[in-house]
Amino acid sequence: MSFNTFGKIFRFTTWGESHGPAIGCVVDGCPPNININETDIQKELNKRKPGQSKFTTQRKEDDKVTLLSGVFEGKTTGTPISMIIFNKDMRSRDYETIKNKFRPGHADFTYFKKYGIRDYRGGGRQSARETASRVAAGAIAKKVLQQKLGKKFQVIGAVTQLGILGCDTSKWNDRFISKNPFFCPDKNMLKLWEKYLLSIRKAGSSCGAIIEVRARGVPVGLGAPIYSKLDMDLASAMMSINAVKGVNIGSGMSSAQLTGEQNSDEILQKGKKTKFNSNNAGGILGGISSGQEIVVSFAVKPTSSILTSRKTIDRYGKNTSISVKGRHDPCVGIRAVPIGEAMMNCVLLDHYLMNKAQCS
Amino acid sequence: MSFNTFGKIFRFTTWGESHGPAIGCVVDGCPPNININETDIQKELNKRKPGQSKFTTQRKEDDKVTLLSGVFEGKTTGTPISMIIFNKDMRSRDYETIKNKFRPGHADFTYFKKYGIRDYRGGGRQSARETASRVAAGAIAKKVLQQKLGKKFQVIGAVTQLGILGCDTSKWNDRFISKNPFFCPDKNMLKLWEKYLLSIRKAGSSCGAIIEVRARGVPVGLGAPIYSKLDMDLASAMMSINAVKGVNIGSGMSSAQLTGEQNSDEILQKGKKTKFNSNNAGGILGGISSGQEIVVSFAVKPTSSILTSRKTIDRYGKNTSISVKGRHDPCVGIRAVPIGEAMMNCVLLDHYLMNKAQCS
Amino acid sequence: MSFNTFGKIFRFTTWGESHGPAIGCVVDGCPPNININETDIQKELNKRKPGQSKFTTQRKEDDKVTLLSGVFEGKTTGTPISMIIFNKDMRSRDYETIKNKFRPGHADFTYFKKYGIRDYRGGGRQSARETASRVAAGAIAKKVLQQKLGKKFQVIGAVTQLGILGCDTSKWNDRFISKNPFFCPDKNMLKLWEKYLLSIRKAGSSCGAIIEVRARGVPVGLGAPIYSKLDMDLASAMMSINAVKGVNIGSGMSSAQLTGEQNSDEILQKGKKTKFNSNNAGGILGGISSGQEIVVSFAVKPTSSILTSRKTIDRYGKNTSISVKGRHDPCVGIRAVPIGEAMMNCVLLDHYLMNKAQCS
Amino acid sequence: MSFNTFGKIFRFTTWGESHGPAIGCVVDGCPPNININETDIQKELNKRKPGQSKFTTQRKEDDKVTLLSGVFEGKTTGTPISMIIFNKDMRSRDYETIKNKFRPGHADFTYFKKYGIRDYRGGGRQSARETASRVAAGAIAKKVLQQKLGKKFQVIGAVTQLGILGCDTSKWNDRFISKNPFFCPDKNMLKLWEKYLLSIRKAGSSCGAIIEVRARGVPVGLGAPIYSKLDMDLASAMMSINAVKGVNIGSGMSSAQLTGEQNSDEILQKGKKTKFNSNNAGGILGGISSGQEIVVSFAVKPTSSILTSRKTIDRYGKNTSISVKGRHDPCVGIRAVPIGEAMMNCVLLDHYLMNKAQCS
Repeated sequence: MSFNTFGKIFRFTTWGESHGPAIGCVVDGCPPNININETDIQKELNKRKPGQSKFTTQRKEDDKVTLLSGVFEGKTTGTPISMIIFNKDMRSRDYETIKNKFRPGHADFTYFKKYGIRDYRGGGRQSARETASRVAAGAIAKKVLQQKLGKKFQVIGAVTQLGILGCDTSKWNDRFISKNPFFCPDKNMLKLWEKYLLSIRKAGSSCGAIIEVRARGVPVGLGAPIYSKLDMDLASAMMSINAVKGVNIGSGMSSAQLTGEQNSDEILQKGKKTKFNSNNAGGILGGISSGQEIVVSFAVKPTSSILTSRKTIDRYGKNTSISVKGRHDPCVGIRAVPIGEAMMNCVLLDHYLMNKAQCS
Repeated sequence: MSFNTFGKIFRFTTWGESHGPAIGCVVDGCPPNININETDIQKELNKRKPGQSKFTTQRKEDDKVTLLSGVFEGKTTGTPISMIIFNKDMRSRDYETIKNKFRPGHADFTYFKKYGIRDYRGGGRQSARETASRVAAGAIAKKVLQQKLGKKFQVIGAVTQLGILGCDTSKWNDRFISKNPFFCPDKNMLKLWEKYLLSIRKAGSSCGAIIEVRARGVPVGLGAPIYSKLDMDLASAMMSINAVKGVNIGSGMSSAQLTGEQNSDEILQKGKKTKFNSNNAGGILGGISSGQEIVVSFAVKPTSSILTSRKTIDRYGKNTSISVKGRHDPCVGIRAVPIGEAMMNCVLLDHYLMNKAQCS
Repeated sequence: MSFNTFGKIFRFTTWGESHGPAIGCVVDGCPPNININETDIQKELNKRKPGQSKFTTQRKEDDKVTLLSGVFEGKTTGTPISMIIFNKDMRSRDYETIKNKFRPGHADFTYFKKYGIRDYRGGGRQSARETASRVAAGAIAKKVLQQKLGKKFQVIGAVTQLGILGCDTSKWNDRFISKNPFFCPDKNMLKLWEKYLLSIRKAGSSCGAIIEVRARGVPVGLGAPIYSKLDMDLASAMMSINAVKGVNIGSGMSSAQLTGEQNSDEILQKGKKTKFNSNNAGGILGGISSGQEIVVSFAVKPTSSILTSRKTIDRYGKNTSISVKGRHDPCVGIRAVPIGEAMMNCVLLDHYLMNKAQCS
Repeated sequence: MSFNTFGKIFRFTTWGESHGPAIGCVVDGCPPNININETDIQKELNKRKPGQSKFTTQRKEDDKVTLLSGVFEGKTTGTPISMIIFNKDMRSRDYETIKNKFRPGHADFTYFKKYGIRDYRGGGRQSARETASRVAAGAIAKKVLQQKLGKKFQVIGAVTQLGILGCDTSKWNDRFISKNPFFCPDKNMLKLWEKYLLSIRKAGSSCGAIIEVRARGVPVGLGAPIYSKLDMDLASAMMSINAVKGVNIGSGMSSAQLTGEQNSDEILQKGKKTKFNSNNAGGILGGISSGQEIVVSFAVKPTSSILTSRKTIDRYGKNTSISVKGRHDPCVGIRAVPIGEAMMNCVLLDHYLMNKAQCS
């Protein structure tokens, strides 16, 4: 059992609350002799930093990571890697309003009912701030996989739908993704998305998003049926991200509408390479990677904190209402891209090690 | 780690291949003093029995379960409950064609590449036959939850989309579901679905489906953040079912298209009861049950075995083609309803016990 | 968590009660392509068969094992291996006396207090009958290790102390062990032990024993610090055997009385081989195998069921007394030898796979 | 799997090396609403502080603990509790000699062979410094158990044998233990032990020790057969402590020499209380606590670092020798007392929660 630990062999445990002194992460099961330094990790953390554009929240989260153990003279030693990020923006004064009220769409109500106590400052443990820890863990997983699988291995995520506006994933452009504030993969949509999100924000409203994460260069054979299927663990990983409500592998929910002819990806041998005519399976068959690109997408619900007043109750069971003052984040989904990438890296490394254990 | 075990405290381990002598399941962590007998389990198993109608495959799977341990004088003793189902339809003669060819859309290719060996008879371990074992485990979980939570606790599943034809879930009728061969919850759709599926079958084709499972009477507080969130475990559970490619909690993938106003379910106190104005969250906030109905849906891809010839390769890497002869199952999704219910029962019991451990 | 499962990657789950229809075991995480057949497993099971000599109990336990899954055409497939042993000697008539009384030294009292119910027939789940299942699992682990490590790998156990009579372990003779009913490794002690045990038995009494298990040909590097140390798992494994009350690694408890000079095994390089001047460490340093012989010993307490009347209470809290009628087993420790070997094989394979995962 | 995590529901993960910037611990699964503050934890840490008397090493380890998460306004919130202890005595200059040589009796050789790299400064991860983290975790477990079980619950450890000198455990005196630098429970031995240890130290030698830990006020029913037996987990816990080579439950290894009459503790009902005539079982029957005092003892081998020169090899496989310069710790066993207590507290709490899960 593992309340705050993710993974089976490559495992990370996160800790910390939004407004406590620090948050952090302990990575266990990392192979030895992998080159790692704080810069590698910081680089990934910077991707999820809020306040990067006018489209996201402006809390100043520097997210400066410090390595405390498990790395010696620039290499992992096989012992646990502890990382810490001190919180800087810890003012508690803003949280008097939510101290006794349960914000609709948030976990205030359920945490309080479950534990009989909660750290209400900034959402405490439920805050998306926790995701910084996993991005740090994912940075390590990425380094290991790159060293083990070579440069052909690559994980890249993007926002493929912003509220009601989708994009054309056949126009997916890796380079473009990192050059726009939406992680949008399709150049043609950028202007429209900008306009749309500004209007959402101006209205004090919010919208959801769909994030797609792709992994290339993944060998055949990762995934352990029946109950450690690669797609099970990916679904679980993505669903663990705050505000995620749905997960697709390949064609996902849409596969219900396909016929057998449309759906089953035909197999072809081209010289020494096995190819598939299509990738409805999202690179996973029977819970095991097929060598195709792994494709996972997930939906992030709209930010629950909006400017419109919402009905709710307080901790004493009285009816009341609540609204957010000042600036808000119109689409939290955008920030989920590096988190989705991190979870993909962690799950793939975990299964890579699992497969070595049983099948190498 | 647990390749063939599901769950954390209430755990079940399944074993067996489609055409071996038997399949079975060991349930561990079941509370003592629960009334259980073979009839309770058989009743659930009968729901997934194929060959029940002209719409599903006609392999005669009697699925007669035998209890081998863990129950004494009609009550569980807290020791492992072993159940066995002997296979009857074990003729291997039909499987010469697939012995060396990889069926597209199936796990033949990935199992062989991963393990370097596979029991090809009827799909071996990858066969949906394994799901009988979990239905047996689910039957036990259901009995425990009914005894612990009382009659208000109820899990019920239905097919809400058959290929391209959805249904109106606001017309959901519990009683109707068990009275039609599609587990269809909406009377108005039955005729249309019949016609549609017969045409699919006649064409030698297949279609996918969406299954929705609802749980009522679930107390507030089940789910253990951050990495044992209730929705993580439900997503993982449903994704473990053969041919499932997508999972939604509540509004699921659609929540991406909602605004914050539409999505965040307002909270109201009515006397001693806490109510919500809507249930986009599917009964789960921050990974913890809110006391609302838990709503999970998942997509099952169309049956991969169809009458049309499909391109594929054999185990020696030669290009070839394959098609299914004779009768086939036009929509495997239909049979996934009792499996989805079983997984829901297992996950809920697991979290009920987990919550008792930490929070009671 | 795993009430009835042992191991981390190579895992076995046992089930069944002494007088239920059957007992059995599911082995998960076994590597594929290992040659296994029922004869291999039966051979190990036959070693623990009671009724083999006049020194042990005479319940006829044929322990005929049947393989139900996970092996195809003589080779493991990487899927779970289910094994079943049907119980033959299931008469319940003998158990009326212990139905309501708690036998001192047995787990009757604690099982009943914990679960509020117990299968009292023959000790139910607490019976040493369960150990047959682990011997079956151990037989599989042994085959895997022999195939992976070659013939230099070997596990062998012996009784090194019978009640008050020790033996000279420097006289340890592998071949002799299997040729005497005590698993005694020292020829000189055999006559004395025979005489001693017959006197114990004649007196209706019982005695304890110490079992030592040695593993040779184990590579350097098995064991995962800090909390999956090889010696932790070996101690845990041996302590799981019925009636075991103490476990030593190498010099064990005696190491308390040594000086630093006596205890620390000096290291020497002889050509390409690293040797040690002594083996007080029992082949384990810092929880990791050193390449030396692994030496574990454990104490089995005397059989609790004796002919002398003992004071106890019944399930209603009344004072009463109990004694065993007829034949009894004067030293259950003797039968623990193949069980200790099985557990050693399982732990070593588990760590072999774990090490491959992280360090290969 | 869990390389650096201990426990099943109440779990702690430790991280850090002897000479890194800090060491620490993340405690997960702690029940909410438990009163905890840094003083409670510091108090336990102070018990293991070296340099407390002339009999132990004099490294100045202040072991000042800081709470980073999981506690809000003095109470646990059910979220992970992160604790950090910054290292102060981090000079690396002393470690040039052991950089390339493997110290006999230490884990230098095995760590290097396993991982191909090691942090050699002060033993790195293998250092006993790690045990500070578990004492911190144990402090939390103790607080929870005291709050749940009341004041009758108590865990107390002592040194019962110092090298060749045992003590009379029937003279066990709780109060005396904390008043002498040896944790000696028997007043009569103090003088002799002082003399003995000074002579050992003067000779540049070292000796082993036996530590006994007792738990009182433990309810009947803790322990989960077959493979989470309370004694399995206690054996595993104690064996995880650096330099431990043997573990006894109750009569332990000595039980081999007892007869059935001597060993089986008779049961008596006295009014509403169930009593036992003796406690050879150490409070555990069939892996489940019986309500008697839990008694565990373990042997710590003599300090491996001694002043006498010892043969060894270097990392290049050359024969060489090594000896310790300056002051050394003549008996590391003494410092193991608070660690043994901590592990006992953690195991008992873990089983308390496990029992609530399945049996409450």
